[in-house]
Amino acid sequence: MSVLSPLTPPPRLLMGPGPINCYPRVLSAMATQLVGQYDPVMTGYMNEVMALYRDVFNTKNQQTFLVDGTSRAGIEAVLVSAIEPGDKVLVPIFGRFGHLLAEIAERADADVHTIEVPWGEVFTAADIEKAIQEVQPKMLAIVQGDTSTTMLQPLEEIGSICEAHDVLFYCDATASVGGNPLKVDEWKLDAVSVGLQKCLGGPSGSAPITLSDKFVKTVRTRHHVEAGIRDAHHESARGPKIRSNYFDLPMIMDYWGEERLNHHTEAASMLYCARECARVHLEEGQENVIARHKVAGDAMLAGVQAMGLAPFGDLKHKMYNVVGVYIPDDVDGEAVREALLLRFNIEIGTSFGPLKGKIWRIGTMGYNAREDAVLHTLQSLETVLRMQGMTLPQGAGVDAALAVFTEAAND
Amino acid sequence: MSVLSPLTPPPRLLMGPGPINCYPRVLSAMATQLVGQYDPVMTGYMNEVMALYRDVFNTKNQQTFLVDGTSRAGIEAVLVSAIEPGDKVLVPIFGRFGHLLAEIAERADADVHTIEVPWGEVFTAADIEKAIQEVQPKMLAIVQGDTSTTMLQPLEEIGSICEAHDVLFYCDATASVGGNPLKVDEWKLDAVSVGLQKCLGGPSGSAPITLSDKFVKTVRTRHHVEAGIRDAHHESARGPKIRSNYFDLPMIMDYWGEERLNHHTEAASMLYCARECARVHLEEGQENVIARHKVAGDAMLAGVQAMGLAPFGDLKHKMYNVVGVYIPDDVDGEAVREALLLRFNIEIGTSFGPLKGKIWRIGTMGYNAREDAVLHTLQSLETVLRMQGMTLPQGAGVDAALAVFTEAAND
Repeated sequence: MSVLSPLTPPPRLLMGPGPINCYPRVLSAMATQLVGQYDPVMTGYMNEVMALYRDVFNTKNQQTFLVDGTSRAGIEAVLVSAIEPGDKVLVPIFGRFGHLLAEIAERADADVHTIEVPWGEVFTAADIEKAIQEVQPKMLAIVQGDTSTTMLQPLEEIGSICEAHDVLFYCDATASVGGNPLKVDEWKLDAVSVGLQKCLGGPSGSAPITLSDKFVKTVRTRHHVEAGIRDAHHESARGPKIRSNYFDLPMIMDYWGEERLNHHTEAASMLYCARECARVHLEEGQENVIARHKVAGDAMLAGVQAMGLAPFGDLKHKMYNVVGVYIPDDVDGEAVREALLLRFNIEIGTSFGPLKGKIWRIGTMGYNAREDAVLHTLQSLETVLRMQGMTLPQGAGVDAALAVFTEAAND
Repeated sequence: MSVLSPLTPPPRLLMGPGPINCYPRVLSAMATQLVGQYDPVMTGYMNEVMALYRDVFNTKNQQTFLVDGTSRAGIEAVLVSAIEPGDKVLVPIFGRFGHLLAEIAERADADVHTIEVPWGEVFTAADIEKAIQEVQPKMLAIVQGDTSTTMLQPLEEIGSICEAHDVLFYCDATASVGGNPLKVDEWKLDAVSVGLQKCLGGPSGSAPITLSDKFVKTVRTRHHVEAGIRDAHHESARGPKIRSNYFDLPMIMDYWGEERLNHHTEAASMLYCARECARVHLEEGQENVIARHKVAGDAMLAGVQAMGLAPFGDLKHKMYNVVGVYIPDDVDGEAVREALLLRFNIEIGTSFGPLKGKIWRIGTMGYNAREDAVLHTLQSLETVLRMQGMTLPQGAGVDAALAVFTEAAND
């Protein structure tokens, strides 16, 4: 084949459920030249990343670091390190990513128990307490925000329930972190995994996680040092060996810890990226970032409603950063998405499973939780729906969004 | 904590066993803004990456793509997808990374059989054939270049042996790819995994792999589609489910294939990076890149020998891109490395296991397989050894290296 041309992607505005456009500063950080993996400069950066993500997660957990892979790498690392075959795991499922947690736990040979609510709803704390009492699991595994449904599961009361029943409380917060509150210590979470590609404004490819001392103690019983680098002073394995080398959290902790015991070679450019995502977030201030996501999300919701479109699901429990919108009758949902993409350079999302073909998902995340991004999206959606033959009130969507932003600015 | 300062790493020259400095073009590519994961532009880039790495691997294998993680993610994906509990796997070990292959295969509950040669040597084809006859494994798993010893295992004759005994032939070529010949189809390899952070001149964090049709057929018997996205037309699982979701190669192939079935969210910036690494490699021309690594490696070897330092291992089987150098008596190896790093901004490598404290490892890889990088390293090493009280012939190392480069330029 001929050698291909340089990268010249079109300037898409990514208003789907993620990934979204990166903050420009995050892109610049990734172009930084490398240092060696045990260079004191690099290990210093690793320590800084740990400190920065403690602030992102609102935790004092020492064990706060990156798993090198996409978000589901963080999920699998948590589950496969904690689960021994036969362990009971309870997974409340309210969308696609609940199924994913159950699927990953099943592959780790957990005894998986699930409860479900219809897509578009969330669980009450009482639902979860009842299931915990029945199942008596070792771990509760739940998603905070499931982009497949746009729902945000309240977590505030669940930690105390887990504590009372001696259950490890694990949550994947990839879709919600950075755009919605997430208080790891206050909510008594034992393990949380996230990704960069939603409200943190980075690309997919690095999975920050945080682990409570209780969780660490559990996985440390399966600690094991590789034959190729084991010294006399290293203890041999105690509990059953974790089934994955790559996702063996005790070994990854040894690499991020004082001993700096070789495991993988840290993905340095993605670490630079994760560091900058956290800096952008913390410089703006977590409360300010979340407030910006709320305003942008409210504006998008007000806009689509003013256009006469119906939002999906229980709006009291919608994530700030994404809204589901029913595709109107007689409108070809995919043709709308294609025209938005190819004529206006704007991407909105399709959907999965029971919602496939029924709703669009429109995100307002990270760098794109911005007034201009919301306004252009609503205007373009109006135009494309007109192109599809729909009759809409002129400018109703964009005007409603403008009103929300104006009100927020005056507050 | 206070919000931390921007990234300003010192301009290290990374002359260890990898990671090394990235090609500047590769860093620039990573700073490119994203497009959505199912954008035709993105799926086009994915197809281009597949085509580019077919050329890097010298293969026609359709299934040539990226695993999102560091090199050992690629290793684990190959092993965990192919191995069912109890399957016999033969691992010839000639350094640290052979132990790693065995360790990962053991965690997949393979029946692992190993043969070993002392560090600094490689296996003959006859050694391997004999072991295959004895063990009758499902798979042979071997490293091409083991950076822990600098040795390059000849692979040319092994493929036919594996074929004759119906053994899957898997090789990890992370340390050697791009700087030494690797002919996947000609050598009858069934699976090869690599990383970007050595001779391909990128950062760690993406693992290109290629799989023969025979290998694909083997892992497809364990094909399974996730519950959250399964449609009526998807077959349910056949063979025993692969134990990892993240490393389930049939699912990853579905994501890279025509169906574009959602699995992970592709790590777009690392894909941009992998694409540019391949472009740099193929634009220069694979034979030219390998020749450049040979000259730089020969020059570094001639340089250290002219300084009176002894190289490690069987030089007939040394990788072009790294040399082991015995630390002279009465010299503090770590003090030398520290002075090189902190005074000269040059990193050379320490070593693992039985070689720990005995040798340095000096690399000439990717962007750093350059005359100026070799010359600065040899001069600085001379200066630092003088600082340590050693007596050396003035400029002998740099002069010997200059002679090698001059001769190569005149050829």
